[in-house]
Amino acid sequence: MKKYVYGIDVGGTTIKMGLFDFDNMEMLDSYEIPTPTSENGSFILKIIYESILDCNKRHNIASKDLVGVGMDVPCPIKNGYVESCANLHLDDIDLVAEMNKYVDNHVVVAIANDATIAAYGENASLENPYKNAVLITLGTGVGGGIILDGDIVEGATGFGGEIGHIRVYEEKEKVCGCGSKGCLEQICGTKGILDFTQEQLKKNESILDKNNLTVKSIFDAAKHNDEVALLTVHRVAKHIGIAASIISMVVEPEVYIIGGGVSKAGSFFINLIERYYRENARFSTGKIPFKLAQTGNDAGMIGSALLVKNHIEN
Amino acid sequence: MKKYVYGIDVGGTTIKMGLFDFDNMEMLDSYEIPTPTSENGSFILKIIYESILDCNKRHNIASKDLVGVGMDVPCPIKNGYVESCANLHLDDIDLVAEMNKYVDNHVVVAIANDATIAAYGENASLENPYKNAVLITLGTGVGGGIILDGDIVEGATGFGGEIGHIRVYEEKEKVCGCGSKGCLEQICGTKGILDFTQEQLKKNESILDKNNLTVKSIFDAAKHNDEVALLTVHRVAKHIGIAASIISMVVEPEVYIIGGGVSKAGSFFINLIERYYRENARFSTGKIPFKLAQTGNDAGMIGSALLVKNHIEN
Repeated sequence: MKKYVYGIDVGGTTIKMGLFDFDNMEMLDSYEIPTPTSENGSFILKIIYESILDCNKRHNIASKDLVGVGMDVPCPIKNGYVESCANLHLDDIDLVAEMNKYVDNHVVVAIANDATIAAYGENASLENPYKNAVLITLGTGVGGGIILDGDIVEGATGFGGEIGHIRVYEEKEKVCGCGSKGCLEQICGTKGILDFTQEQLKKNESILDKNNLTVKSIFDAAKHNDEVALLTVHRVAKHIGIAASIISMVVEPEVYIIGGGVSKAGSFFINLIERYYRENARFSTGKIPFKLAQTGNDAGMIGSALLVKNHIEN
Repeated sequence: MKKYVYGIDVGGTTIKMGLFDFDNMEMLDSYEIPTPTSENGSFILKIIYESILDCNKRHNIASKDLVGVGMDVPCPIKNGYVESCANLHLDDIDLVAEMNKYVDNHVVVAIANDATIAAYGENASLENPYKNAVLITLGTGVGGGIILDGDIVEGATGFGGEIGHIRVYEEKEKVCGCGSKGCLEQICGTKGILDFTQEQLKKNESILDKNNLTVKSIFDAAKHNDEVALLTVHRVAKHIGIAASIISMVVEPEVYIIGGGVSKAGSFFINLIERYYRENARFSTGKIPFKLAQTGNDAGMIGSALLVKNHIEN
């Protein structure tokens, strides 16, 4: 008899639901539902559970054949416990315990941080997955996830792999969203990229339109050797390289995977990051390869499904 | 019948041999032998094995009752494999495999990096050991060890926990022993501490004697509010605090343990490190406590014995 798991990627605006064949991890179905924002957190789990029941019905899945529910959330989480998640209006809640109230006793529930889950999914999706991998995701913010000896690193209370807030430079004035200064995210997040480029546009000629500046337009202009755009892109690549060189002295992974919107700039960008990484890496850790994330928008669903599969099998 | 393990701390000049009761981990005997430096590495293991046989004889220990040999070495090591260890004239050698050639088949051998083992031993020696701990050792160099979920973090090839080479500041000129710039060790290692203080002595009044400057004299003078000494000690404490704030965003431990010679400065110094850590720590990770290392010179023997005990029991 076939067995099934769900991989569910819970974001601030949408919940991505993925149904997977447990044995071969083929994605059988995926769809989105809006994230309820007006109610408290455990209501989200009810919505998700009802959606699971609907989906089971559509696919004629008997409840005994559903064996696992994997899920990710956009906040620090430790062993299923969330202290606070502004995006989802969650406070002081054990999400695994709550989800277990809904699902049948035999169903295994596993929930982790979204960037960590993405790391798990991206690494597993590589042709030859590694035992030790670090994912750096570049988007509005800068996130990350760390896999050591095949397991996700959550840290003592869920702040493990908060790569965007590694201090990579000496910042005297500008304060990061986290309240500190000199964070990787201050340079490599969307705001940091746009602000720095606007500053440069005041001083230099450029093909960029300062009134319609986007991260994509900057990376595109850099590929056309626009000097301002190149300044920005080099600055971003350099500080990701520095952050990775630091991470190597803490956990020394076997691979760095670069994901998120900015990574769409492709090999041009990855090569630049690798160059700055090698300049800053200590000892023989400069050899660690960099790869582009592959699974894109599905990383959260795939990673969540894989995590719960791993929990069931081990 | 009693069972026994050895915990052996292999340094560049001496090998510290410790005999332990397996069940209660009481140290029954400890002594030092000089590290052989004229011969190649596997000769070291022969010397150690012969010393084990001697010690067994002295304590009337039958070979069947020796169940484990734990050891640490002053170089990167991964699953027993050492690529290169200048201190011990080791190259491309699987130390565990080599040691297994000497000891009886039933004896479990475990070997790891000295700072990592110290972290393991120091944490285990706390009244309530943590599952996730980071040790920072301050001596000639700056070392470190990371324990996550009760296991040591070696990294892909043994560079995990090389905390002394985390980049903590922007250094343009001075090159660290590792070949890079801006390492924690450049500020907090003995050379960094002495060099910086000598520079300050050229510009400022001080009770320090520039011709007999030692790290201890600087920390002592700082306790007497000598301005130059305070400048140095604050600089050291600040950068340890910054390094720890970075480590928290990678693995988020539950405790930081400060060891090594400089840590003898005691609570005065620990409090200063904690202050700078809290200034730099992100989110709620500023709450992580700092503790002074307790086991001192025995940390290597104790940690090695505990590591092999853990291997035997798990």
